[in-house]
Order: sequence, then structure tokens, then C-alpha cells
Amino acid sequence: MILSALLTTVGINFALCLLFFTLYSVLRKQSVNAHVYAPRLVAEGKSPRSDFNLERFLPSASWVRKAWETSEDELLALSGLDGVVFMRIFIFSIKVFSFAMIIGFILLPINFLGNQLTMDYSDLPNKSLESFSISNVNDGSNRLWIHFSAAYIFTGFVCYLLYSELKYISSKRITCFHSSEPKIHQFTVLVRGIPVSSGISFSESVDNFFTLYYPSTYLSHVIVRRTSKLQKLISDADDLSKRLLHMKSTKYTGRKVDHLDRYEKKLETLVENVRMEQSLITGQEVPAAFVSFKSRFGAAIALHIKQGINPTEWNTEEAPEPQDVYWPFFSASFTKIWISKYVAIVACIVFTVLFFGPVLLVQSLTHLDQLETWFPFLKGILSMTFVSQVITGYLPSLILQLFQHYVPPTMILLSSIQGYIGHTHIEKSACYKILWFTIWTVFFANVLSGSILYQANVFLELKNIPSVLAIAVPGQAEFFIAYVVTTGWTSTSSELFQMINLIWNFFRRKILGREDDQLAVPSANYYSKIPKILLFGLLGITYLFLAPLILPFLLVYFCLGYIVFRNQLLTVYSPKHETNGKFWPIVHNSTICSLVLMHIIAIGIFGLKKIPLASGLMIPLPVMTLLFNNYCQRRFIPLFKSYPAECLIKKDRDDQSIMGATLPFFRQLKFEFEDPCALGDDLL
Amino acid sequence: MILSALLTTVGINFALCLLFFTLYSVLRKQSVNAHVYAPRLVAEGKSPRSDFNLERFLPSASWVRKAWETSEDELLALSGLDGVVFMRIFIFSIKVFSFAMIIGFILLPINFLGNQLTMDYSDLPNKSLESFSISNVNDGSNRLWIHFSAAYIFTGFVCYLLYSELKYISSKRITCFHSSEPKIHQFTVLVRGIPVSSGISFSESVDNFFTLYYPSTYLSHVIVRRTSKLQKLISDADDLSKRLLHMKSTKYTGRKVDHLDRYEKKLETLVENVRMEQSLITGQEVPAAFVSFKSRFGAAIALHIKQGINPTEWNTEEAPEPQDVYWPFFSASFTKIWISKYVAIVACIVFTVLFFGPVLLVQSLTHLDQLETWFPFLKGILSMTFVSQVITGYLPSLILQLFQHYVPPTMILLSSIQGYIGHTHIEKSACYKILWFTIWTVFFANVLSGSILYQANVFLELKNIPSVLAIAVPGQAEFFIAYVVTTGWTSTSSELFQMINLIWNFFRRKILGREDDQLAVPSANYYSKIPKILLFGLLGITYLFLAPLILPFLLVYFCLGYIVFRNQLLTVYSPKHETNGKFWPIVHNSTICSLVLMHIIAIGIFGLKKIPLASGLMIPLPVMTLLFNNYCQRRFIPLFKSYPAECLIKKDRDDQSIMGATLPFFRQLKFEFEDPCALGDDLL
Repeated sequence: MILSALLTTVGINFALCLLFFTLYSVLRKQSVNAHVYAPRLVAEGKSPRSDFNLERFLPSASWVRKAWETSEDELLALSGLDGVVFMRIFIFSIKVFSFAMIIGFILLPINFLGNQLTMDYSDLPNKSLESFSISNVNDGSNRLWIHFSAAYIFTGFVCYLLYSELKYISSKRITCFHSSEPKIHQFTVLVRGIPVSSGISFSESVDNFFTLYYPSTYLSHVIVRRTSKLQKLISDADDLSKRLLHMKSTKYTGRKVDHLDRYEKKLETLVENVRMEQSLITGQEVPAAFVSFKSRFGAAIALHIKQGINPTEWNTEEAPEPQDVYWPFFSASFTKIWISKYVAIVACIVFTVLFFGPVLLVQSLTHLDQLETWFPFLKGILSMTFVSQVITGYLPSLILQLFQHYVPPTMILLSSIQGYIGHTHIEKSACYKILWFTIWTVFFANVLSGSILYQANVFLELKNIPSVLAIAVPGQAEFFIAYVVTTGWTSTSSELFQMINLIWNFFRRKILGREDDQLAVPSANYYSKIPKILLFGLLGITYLFLAPLILPFLLVYFCLGYIVFRNQLLTVYSPKHETNGKFWPIVHNSTICSLVLMHIIAIGIFGLKKIPLASGLMIPLPVMTLLFNNYCQRRFIPLFKSYPAECLIKKDRDDQSIMGATLPFFRQLKFEFEDPCALGDDLL
Repeated sequence: MILSALLTTVGINFALCLLFFTLYSVLRKQSVNAHVYAPRLVAEGKSPRSDFNLERFLPSASWVRKAWETSEDELLALSGLDGVVFMRIFIFSIKVFSFAMIIGFILLPINFLGNQLTMDYSDLPNKSLESFSISNVNDGSNRLWIHFSAAYIFTGFVCYLLYSELKYISSKRITCFHSSEPKIHQFTVLVRGIPVSSGISFSESVDNFFTLYYPSTYLSHVIVRRTSKLQKLISDADDLSKRLLHMKSTKYTGRKVDHLDRYEKKLETLVENVRMEQSLITGQEVPAAFVSFKSRFGAAIALHIKQGINPTEWNTEEAPEPQDVYWPFFSASFTKIWISKYVAIVACIVFTVLFFGPVLLVQSLTHLDQLETWFPFLKGILSMTFVSQVITGYLPSLILQLFQHYVPPTMILLSSIQGYIGHTHIEKSACYKILWFTIWTVFFANVLSGSILYQANVFLELKNIPSVLAIAVPGQAEFFIAYVVTTGWTSTSSELFQMINLIWNFFRRKILGREDDQLAVPSANYYSKIPKILLFGLLGITYLFLAPLILPFLLVYFCLGYIVFRNQLLTVYSPKHETNGKFWPIVHNSTICSLVLMHIIAIGIFGLKKIPLASGLMIPLPVMTLLFNNYCQRRFIPLFKSYPAECLIKKDRDDQSIMGATLPFFRQLKFEFEDPCALGDDLL
């Protein structure tokens, strides 16, 4: 790719972004789009006025100012700690890449003044982008020591930032906990593997165990029941009743009335079945229960100390918030959970490997000549300019986007199979899976293009990894610069513009003529967004000293993202469940991995560039980075896993001094964790 | 090595063993040797009679019968659970290798009937041992599938045994805990990283913290004091006073009396210094304390839940038994412990690498010709048969033994630097280090003979490991068969015979004329013995289907060891501190590693033998073994780390019902954990 081509791409995408931003600033002011652009505000009763004035049709940047001016405390109040942590990813990245830019300013001229690639200096616009990369520095040149120092200085700076972010967010986590309202799940643990005792039910067994061993703190429990059959019946009945409602609202001729009658009868039997199942359900106890205690510290004791003599029995884990429980794959057996964990891991790997199919398909589409040799009959069609442009230009990314659309739900499914019971845990685990998937299919698949077997081989020969990566990674610099500009910038502006929702909203209003009153405020789904952002972080860190030209585009991406996502958190998304900042360790780990990857590539590069001393002196850097990470893991990560005794006891006492020994929700405890299906009050 | 040479080695070593056993059976009956052969019995007042009769001078096997007949419960009463676990290593190994023998009986003829090595069948005694190994099976032969099945069946059997042993020992551990006397360390945790508060001492800080958060269970605490200077002074004074005592007991001439006077003055000033230090010591508090609770469960709560908001403060860990505390390297700071952990690991690796020096020296000694070219002036001496025999035969193993003698104390030192505070923890960690060291210097150093760099290289190319090992390991079969017979058998009989102690005892009585009344009953030092036994287990497992000829010799070793060590536990060693079976997980992990190593070699061998299908079908076996291990780690290992709540609370209540709420040692608690130096009552 030459410089002018890059500038063209940047120009087009910049124009597209500008267009989207302008359109958004106008469209968001139209009250008909409020359900698309401000569902959160609508739900809070703060929807924009619909009075006619000229200002409504003029683009303005008022939303940018609003997003910018909102303080972190306001954001905390509106979107919870997760929202704050999400935004801190952008702040952290902006800090990192601002510093990287300074380093880049020093490295760029050094790269450009090298003459390893022997090109003339006169024709700047037609210069290959490679002349700005480390490939252009002469082999064995002493200037490479500047790159060497850059790696050390940059790593030190990033580690310092990581440390201060961990410190900041973990203290924020404790503060949030202290100021939080008492919630039932803080007093509760989920117990799995209740042993079978002859003659008594699981419920009695739980009562006996906890009244025996925790007489002063045990409060009550709710046994888990197997409801999958019931769930199926209820959802069937729900569907049917909706269809009936719809049919009744339109007019009928003879045959349709027959249909109506049949449906109504079917619904009646279904409802009867549901009632029967609900009465039967008391017998279908599962050896698992939500056990509640009188204090948070009491629950923590049951959580942190192994309960039973047999470690597969009486296993305790954190209880999720009642509305956060995800039942379908619930399993109470130790061995089953253990097995499903490995099944999920294997499935995740298989899914990643299978995904290389579409990737290869896409790669073949960009090489039309190959396609022509495979399918000779396509020759006529493919020779048309327009068709070939569509196929090579838009189709590949469309296909990839389509497939990638299914990644988050698949990973959520895998994580829920794995035995996590709360949405927050599932999402955290899915976030790790999506991150692994994204890095593998975007970064490594492009860098080590070739068969999966070849890629596996690369990683089996530990010794060769640096040199293989050092050859392959710089070669893809141009691709990834384009990737940041196209995919990165566009994804941000389309996040703002919400094209699909906008069209769907228009279609529903104009064609179907429905003014839906039921407003669904979407949740931010951080788990699917964080991996994308981290991928760009990885690109920036690995290409820092290989091709510093990527840095300004990344910085623009992060600045855009900062403004756009702040705006979205304020107006569109509303928090559904709160992990209280547990997403940050993912960001931390991903950054550490990116740094180590950068070091490995550096070791290879300096070897290739014939200064083995720099290559050898590079080795301590990943070791030190991993040691730093280990220190952080012990120093801060415990705070992200559970709250310390000091916190819990303080909070317990604060509550007691305000509300007395019996907290208000202790009385309705019984209903909090009951499966909504079993209660049966939401039916029809 | 040919078969007759092997038989000669076996014959010589068998005769040696027999000699040692016979000598032992006579010498042990002489009361003058009681301090060598039955210090434990002497200490218990059960020393053998010294009346003269003929039977005293006849060899007998009565000790074998006694060792054999002792039941496991008796052993438990005498040597604690650690002794039982130690003996179970032998029982486990005997079971494993008895089964392996059956497999070996099938494999031996198959190996022998192959003709890959093309030798004639007629001359059995002169046949190379290689014709009994897998190398002799024809390439691509279908008979190799028998070896393949052997690997699967053997792994299944060993895993079954491992599972049942874990089950047995973990339940034994719980039983022992239930029947144990209440001990102060069960009620105590060690707290490190007490934060500095202005105006109050660490002691007050601890009191404030625990009375605030654990008002109902907190009992008392003992602050740790820095006493290294004091320790030095006390040990100096001790030495001096002993020397004085000795001098006084002999007669003097003029000059010696001067000496005496000078020593006495020196001692006086020393004692004064000690008293001064002791009075100063209250100021030298270290931010660490032993905190005792009113119940075991109370201590467990403080142990398992993070206490402070800052994870580097208020760190709790299990308290060792008071007599088990090892002070010299005590450190209270989180960061210091974290750093010293890595220092210890690096030191351990460096020590292993440095040890290759002596190993190479030894290897050069066995190749005299090379030595002659290096040092031409030695030619004359080396050509003498006797000298050359001594140098090639005895010197190498003597040098190695000498060096290996320093391994356990070095590893103990490293583990105590690492931040462990109790002897039991130090020994457990040292056991792992010695095991790693032994396997590396004995197994890998011999298998992958060559420079350290070459060996490191082998493990960096993951893909080539199986084939490299498959070539190298079978080549050393003969060496290791000889190793089992010489080192294994001899070490067992010398353990019984205690040559050095016997000579020292004789020397002291006859030459020095001292009848020492002070009897030191030695401790069994399992941590230095277990790695040796596990090394033989590793050899047996890896050579099972490569060279089954090793199996009978191993079985003899384990049977000898079983009898000898049972006898030693009954008569010689006395338990000093009790880990309550915590050594077993080391045995378990080592066996799993041996199995996986065997599988990796099998994958390589089947590849070399040109049946790639078997090689491929072998891959699931290590995966399944590791999965099995992971299951065991979750199913049983928690029980080896700490006792579950059920146990602790039951035990607490049992105690209370017998002894009331205040246990007898609660009153003298203050003195239990105090550093003996600081008490000052043992001086002189």
C-alpha cells in the first residue's frame, strides 16, 4: 500500500464518520427516533420535546459537549461501576497511545531515513508505507537501539498506568460496595452437591446442616427445582396467547374463526398442563439451594471455607442477584460441572478452528483469479467491474461481520453450559472467550495466514516463535492500519448511528403502522464490546515500534470511542446487572499479554536485524513484565474476587445501626430466589 | 551390557546386601550399639538387654518378623500419619510394580523374539540386554500393539490405585484430626503485614483489629520480635560455656589455666550482652503476630477470608506448631516474601545447573582415555589396574554421593528463605525441590547427556520432545537397571546398617572413651528420602514397556525398602513434627508426571517404530491422565490443604463438651509462641 492510497482510505472513512455524526446530531432531535437514540431517557421520562423549530433540523455538537461534561461520579450514578470501568478502558488507552505517539514521533523519521528497502526520497505520495516501518532501518544499524529503548520505556510506562488503574478501580470497588444498598445476594450463597440422606428431603438436609453448624448466622434457604419442562410449557403457552391476541385484534372470515377456536382450546390444555406441572414441582428438587445468612460476613464464611468432609459435597459459590440467575443449564453435581467445564473449553477451541472456514472463504473472495479457476462458469459474471468490486470490496467484510455477529451469543451459550449460574459470571467468562476468539481470528489468522496446522506448528516450536512472528507481523502492518481506519472508525460511528435500529423503527412506524408503547431499553453488553477495544489495544502495542504510523489512527479511534460510548451510556444503554468492576482484570491481562507479545516480536526482529545483543537484552523485559503482573495479581486481584472481612463486617454493622438486626427483605426472602416459573403468577 | 555382566552385578550387590543384613542382625543385639540401632527404643526405656548368651552372636531374622507384623494402627501410634504415609509409598509401589511384572512377563518374550537387532539366539549369557528391550521388536510389527495396550492398561491401573490411595489417606487424615489432642497451633494463625498506625504499637494494633472484628472468638496474640542478633549471642555463649565445661573436666598446666581465665571473662561479657539485648528486645517488634482464637473454626475464618482492604496487609496463614517454628529468615513484609519466593526459585534452578559440573567431572572419570589426553602426566599412574579400577569404579559414585549429600540442606535453606515459617512447610517445599533436582540430575542428565544448552534446546522444541526422548531413553536402559541394583539396593541396606554412625559410635567409645548419655533420637527426614523412592518409581514407569527387565529389580528394591524402613521407624527414628499426611500429594503428582512422561516416550517410540496410528492413538492417554489428575486435585487435594468446616466445628464442640469452654493451654498461651531466645530461661 502506498501513502496516497492510505490517505484516500482515511479520507473516505473520515467523510463517512462525519456524515454519520452529522445525521445523528439531526436525527436524534426528532422525537420519532427517541426509541432508537434515547430509549434510556424515554424510560426515565426525559424524552426530547417534539415542538417544531428550526434548531431541530440543524446539525449541532451539543451531544458531544454533554457527553464530555458529564463527570465520572454522574456516570457512576447512571451506569454503575461497570460503566465507569468501561469508560476507563478508553481513558487508559488514550493515555497509553498519547505516550506512544511521542515515541512514534521519534521512531518515524529514523525508520524513514533508513535505506534497507532502497527507494528514492523524492516521490513522497507514492512511497510504500513500508518505508515508515522498522523494515526500512538498515540491518545492524545502531539506530535500532532507539527502538530497543522505546520498548523498555513504553513497557515501563504502561505498567505504571496499569498499576495506578488497578489501584484506582479496586478502591472504587470498595467504595461502591460501602455505599451500596443491602441486596439479598450479598447475604446468600449457592450450595451445590447436597448429599442424599435417606428419609429426608434436600430441603430438610440443608436446614439440618446449616442450623447445626451455623446456628447464629443461618437465616433460611430456597431449594432449586428442575423446571426445564415447565419452562418449555410456559413459553409455548406464552407464544400461543400472543398469537391469539394478535388474531383477535384483526377481523376474521369463517375459516380463520375455526383457527381461533382451535388455538383457544390448545391454550386451555397447555395452561392446564402448566398448573399440573407447578403442583408436581415440589417433588422435583435438585440437590442445590440458595442459603441465606443474617450477615454478609456469615455468607462469606460459608463461601470461603470448604464445608463438607467430601469436597464434592456442600460446594458453595457466590449467589448471583435474583434477577440475574440464568437457569437453563443448571446442574448441581460436582462431576457434571467439572465435565461441562472441559466440554465448553473444547467447544470454544473447535468453534475457533471452524471459524477459519469462513475466513478462508473471505480470503479467497479477495483473490478473484483463484475463484475463477475453481468455478470457470463464473468467468463471465466476474469480469464485470461492478460485480468484481462488490465481491472483492464489500462481500468479504459483510460475510465476516455476519459470522462475527454470532460469536457473542455462541460464547454466552458455551459459558452458560460451563456451569456459571449468574449472567454476570457468564458474561465475564464469555468476554474472555470472545477476546481469545477475536485475537486468534483477526490477529493471528491474518499474521500467520496459512493452514491451521501450520499455525499450530508455529506455536509448538517455542524457539522459533520470535523469528516467525518477526517476519510475519511487520508484513501485515498496512493491513492493520487500514483495519483500524475502516473497521475501527466505522464501528464507532455505526454504534452511534444505530443504522439497523433506525431502519427497523422507521419500518415499524410507517409500514406496520405500530406505535409500540413497550420500550425495551437495551443493556450495554460490555462483554461483546470490550474484546473489540482490546484488539485495537493489542494492535497498537505490537505495532508501536514496528510501524508507528498506526498510532495516530488508533488515537482517533479511542477518542471517538470515548465520546460516542459516553453518549450512548447516558442516553441509550441502561445497566441490567452489575459486576462491580470485575471486567477490569480482563483489560489488565490482555494488556500484559499484548506487551509480552510485543517483546517476543522484538526479540525476533533484533535477531533478524543482526544485532543479537539487543535481542538478548530484550529477554529480561517479558520476564520483568510477567513478574510485575504476578505482583499485581496478588496485590490487587483478590479485591476483584471477593470483599475482605474488614469491609464485610463494617458494612454489616452500618446496616444494623441504620435498619436494626432484621433487614426489610429478610421477610420476603422466600420469593427472591424462587424460579419465576414455579411461582406461576406471571402466566398470562 | 550383556546378560552375564548384569547377573554379576546383581550377584555382587545381593551378596553385599546379605552381608549387611547379617551383620546388622548380630550387631543390633549388642547393647553397645543401642545408640546406633535403637535410639528410639533407648529413649523410650526399651533398650535391649545386655546379658551374655550365645543367641546374641547368631544372625537372626527376628527383626524382619517384628517389622512385618506391626500393624498400620501401631505404626500410626508410633510414627504418626507421616510414618504411615511414608510406608504407603512402598505399599503403593509394590502394588504398581507387581502388576507391572505381569505385563512385563508378556512383553519380555515379545521383545526377545523380535529380530530388529539381528543377533543369534544360541548364546543366551552373552546376549546384550538390548535384545530384551523394545528396540529388538521389528519396525512396523503388529506386536507393538501389545505394548500399546500395555501402556493403556497400566495407566488405568495406576490411576485406579492413585484414586483409592488418595481416598484412603485423606479419610485417614480426617480421622487423625478428630482423634488428635487439642493443640495450640490449631487455634492460631500467623498474621503478617500488620500496618503501621501512628502512636500505637503493633501489639495494640493487632488487639484493636481483632477485638473490633472478631469480638466473640478472638483470644490473644503474641507479637513476633526480631532476635537474630540475640540468637547469635546466645549460641556464642553456649559454645563458650561448653568449651569451658570440657576444659574444667580435664587437668591443666599453667598456660592452660590462663586460657581458662580468659574464656571465663569472655563468657561473662557475653552473658551481660545477652541480658542487655533481652531487655532491649521489647522495642524490636516486627509487624507480625501469632493470633489465637477461642475455637479452631474461629482461626479458620481468619485464615480463609482476606482480612484487610489492602491485600498486602493483615495476611494470614496457618501457624506452625510452636516447637516447629523456624525463625532465622522470618520476614513480615508482603513484598519481601514475594521477592524471596522468586529468588529461591531462581537459586534452585541455578543450583541444579551448577550441579552439572560435578556430573560432567564424574562422566569424564569413567572415560579414562579422555582424562589421559587432558593430563598426559597421569598416564603412568592411570595405567596401573588397581588405580584405574578405583578411579572408574568407586570415585565417580563417591563424588556424586558427596555432592548429593549437600542437596537436602541446601534445598531446606532455599525453602526457608522462600518465606515458609514452619519446619513442616519448609520440608514439604524442600521435598518438591529435591525431587525436581533428583529427576533432573539423575534421569535427564543421563538420558540427554550433553551440554545444558542442548538439554534446554530439547525442551524448547515441543514438537520434537517425543522423538528425542524415544531415541535417548531406551539407550540408557542398561545404565538404569544397574543403577537400581547398585544405588537402590545398597542405599537400602546402608540405611539399615548405618555404617557411619556405627563407626562414629565405636570411635567415640573406644578412642575418646566417652559414654555419651545425651541421646539424640534422629528424625526420619522424609523430605530427603521420598524423592529417592519416587525416582525409582519414575524409572519403573518410564521403562515399563521399553525394558521390562528393570521391573524385578525394582520390586526387590521396594520390598527391601518396605521391611527396612518399617524397622527403622519402629526402632530408630522418632517423629519430630507432623504434617498429617501432607507428603502424599507429592507422591501423587510425581506418579502422574511419570505416567505422562511414559506416554510422551511412547508417542515417540511408536513413531520411530513406524506405526504412526499407534502414535496418534497414544495422544488421548496423557490428556486423559491429566484430566484424571485435575479431577483428583479438586476432589481430594482440598482435604490436604485445610480441614473443612464440618470437621472443625465438630472437633471444637467435642473439646468443649469434654473440657469446657476454656482449654487448659489457653492460660499459658503467652509463652507457647514466644521465641525461646526472648524468654531467656534456657541460658546456661
